[in-house]
Amino acid sequence: MFCIEMGVRDYELDMQGIVNNGIYFNYLEHARHEFLLSNGVDFAALTEAGIHLVVIRSELDYKSSLKSGDRFRVEVALERISKVKFGFRQRVVRMDDDKVCVNGLVIGTALNERGRPYISPQLEALFSA
Amino acid sequence: MFCIEMGVRDYELDMQGIVNNGIYFNYLEHARHEFLLSNGVDFAALTEAGIHLVVIRSELDYKSSLKSGDRFRVEVALERISKVKFGFRQRVVRMDDDKVCVNGLVIGTALNERGRPYISPQLEALFSA
Amino acid sequence: MFCIEMGVRDYELDMQGIVNNGIYFNYLEHARHEFLLSNGVDFAALTEAGIHLVVIRSELDYKSSLKSGDRFRVEVALERISKVKFGFRQRVVRMDDDKVCVNGLVIGTALNERGRPYISPQLEALFSA
Amino acid sequence: MFCIEMGVRDYELDMQGIVNNGIYFNYLEHARHEFLLSNGVDFAALTEAGIHLVVIRSELDYKSSLKSGDRFRVEVALERISKVKFGFRQRVVRMDDDKVCVNGLVIGTALNERGRPYISPQLEALFSA
Repeated sequence: MFCIEMGVRDYELDMQGIVNNGIYFNYLEHARHEFLLSNGVDFAALTEAGIHLVVIRSELDYKSSLKSGDRFRVEVALERISKVKFGFRQRVVRMDDDKVCVNGLVIGTALNERGRPYISPQLEALFSA
Repeated sequence: MFCIEMGVRDYELDMQGIVNNGIYFNYLEHARHEFLLSNGVDFAALTEAGIHLVVIRSELDYKSSLKSGDRFRVEVALERISKVKFGFRQRVVRMDDDKVCVNGLVIGTALNERGRPYISPQLEALFSA
Repeated sequence: MFCIEMGVRDYELDMQGIVNNGIYFNYLEHARHEFLLSNGVDFAALTEAGIHLVVIRSELDYKSSLKSGDRFRVEVALERISKVKFGFRQRVVRMDDDKVCVNGLVIGTALNERGRPYISPQLEALFSA
Repeated sequence: MFCIEMGVRDYELDMQGIVNNGIYFNYLEHARHEFLLSNGVDFAALTEAGIHLVVIRSELDYKSSLKSGDRFRVEVALERISKVKFGFRQRVVRMDDDKVCVNGLVIGTALNERGRPYISPQLEALFSA
């Protein structure tokens, strides 16, 4: 399973002293982009080429909170949901005690310049790998 | 229905020129806190008093994107899900054409200083109103 | 003097319970873009047209902190610094007690598609107004 | 000289496709906190103990932009400015070509629970090292 290791940065904490809920979204997005890159799909290059990878649904369960100093890994597993939809099963797991902090499913698609769903051959290849 | 009006700020846009997905989480959180405040529940004061309102699950459907200059409203409706869980039905709606951009359900609970679920009388009153 | 009114959003607070220093940067940028827009200069449209307004220097003095619930105004005054540089004198002032929270000077320029300084007629007009 | 290595995350880019100016502030803050931690000063622990490290002035020169995929290092050097003020000389340097992206001076102080400047023995030790 693909995963990246990250560390909490203090500016990501909110007044409760824990990582703000919205920040997990950033963590998950970053891990997805790294996952895609490791599979030869460059999000920024795609964007410049007029192909927009977009999120259409997210379901996140917040199980436990990250704090200052915590290190964690973000896991990414890809599955095909339909002809034009793909799902990323993602987890944020604290390194220290292997506790799952966030468990999520993020569903996306790709749009061409006319805003129509378009799974390019490069994206298609992700599923046949 | 409770709602607040907001405007896109350019620093919230990503390289696709649209509001980044993670930012909607911020919009929704801000609207929830304003909703609570309008009902006499001050998130910051609660936090200082050791009662933590936390999100335990979020389900968001991204229907349409916001861009530079867009104004939108964020709607909030509260429902009781269980003894200790409450759900916020929330929508982000573009003002210009009344298009729904995000449709979401955010489920939360309240924890006391020992990390145990605790719906204070003040929170309890939200549901009997 | 141009100014906009804004309110603190709780996700902008850090673990000290005050608005994180980096956030003031966002406030100032948003106010500059609104200032430009009110003078007929649309940052997003310029960007799409290949003209990039960029910040080259910022000097900020942090005088006082904003907290949850605070409302404030962000002031913007424009001055010409050189043929290709312009300066924004900006202040963040808490509404409640008129206290200056941040006092700043943000210096910018405009770059064309080749990355060369280029003050378009539209930008030039800002100074002759 | 103390430095940490970081990588651009795509959510940090703005519609110009470059790291938003406000984000550099986050990078610099994170590097300062890591610097302090490596010298035995834990920002989060200090905050909980009622000692607030605060920024009172920042001067940043933006020389060059970071883009998607860029790796960079953030350098930190500490100097004493007065009895109660300390300065962090910081640079953001792109790894690829050793180009300086941001050159900055961030001046801070420490406040005790009454909001009075207070350089604790632990902080004092930073300068005698």
